[in-house]
Amino acid sequence: MRWEELEKQPCSIARSLAVFGDRWTLLVLRESFMGVKKFADFQANLGISKTIVADRLRHLTDHGILEKVAYQKNPVRYKYKLTRKGLDIYPVFLSITRWGDTYYPGKKGVPLVYHHKNCDHDFNAVSICSECGEPVDARDVIARPGPGAGSYARSANETLSEKKVG
Amino acid sequence: MRWEELEKQPCSIARSLAVFGDRWTLLVLRESFMGVKKFADFQANLGISKTIVADRLRHLTDHGILEKVAYQKNPVRYKYKLTRKGLDIYPVFLSITRWGDTYYPGKKGVPLVYHHKNCDHDFNAVSICSECGEPVDARDVIARPGPGAGSYARSANETLSEKKVG
Repeated sequence: MRWEELEKQPCSIARSLAVFGDRWTLLVLRESFMGVKKFADFQANLGISKTIVADRLRHLTDHGILEKVAYQKNPVRYKYKLTRKGLDIYPVFLSITRWGDTYYPGKKGVPLVYHHKNCDHDFNAVSICSECGEPVDARDVIARPGPGAGSYARSANETLSEKKVG
Repeated sequence: MRWEELEKQPCSIARSLAVFGDRWTLLVLRESFMGVKKFADFQANLGISKTIVADRLRHLTDHGILEKVAYQKNPVRYKYKLTRKGLDIYPVFLSITRWGDTYYPGKKGVPLVYHHKNCDHDFNAVSICSECGEPVDARDVIARPGPGAGSYARSANETLSEKKVG
């Protein structure tokens, strides 16, 4: 399979990765979540070529994850703001951060501390079940084909027909 | 910056992405979380070359995310099992799935339904604050340099000195 065919797969992970799974795209998004909005700041913080930055910003804008907004005239200057669709990727970053903090904290401790304004505490993200509210462990989950499984469920039957996860 | 330099950055997202942020690596992991353990099944399900599968499995084994276990002698056959470190990546996949299910559900609905054995309900994953238990929105989070921020906090001061996320 070629990478470009991924988004056609009836799999939400494949579809999502087809949109933001590119590594530089993920780091551009990281900058957005850190409050970066201007092209020059993306480029300076990531230390990569303007071409890559421009390409990834265009890609994220095309997919409605970032919104390009003019904030100045003569000359026109743009900033890139996260849309609701973009903001909803945040749990992905929180869970990546949690894993990195756990397994690669560095000698001196975690690089960043996250503070929840609503409760005024430093926090970690916990992934819970929407139904019972308990943290979800991979071994407690079973996946089965949903209404949109289509041919994927048939062609990969061994994998998808009610399978214990993990 | 070159991609290889990423893991040296004092950033848990960059460090994590350096380990599993490659797209095929993520899809190999997806298969692991679907219960796939044998080389031939990884290859058949992903439809990619043996070389890529072998490379990614070796990479994940080297990083202690998968464990290579012999399950047969004469000839020796191996399976690849998720370690605790690997299983702990599951929240990343749950949050990717949630986003994909929301924004790219397909015409007929979600491709996979996830069932939580503990409470016997189909569920979505929700990312909550470890302190107050409420769902976390990007706009409610402030990040500040932690004990391991080091030179990163200094060189990227504008970004990291207590910044509203999102």
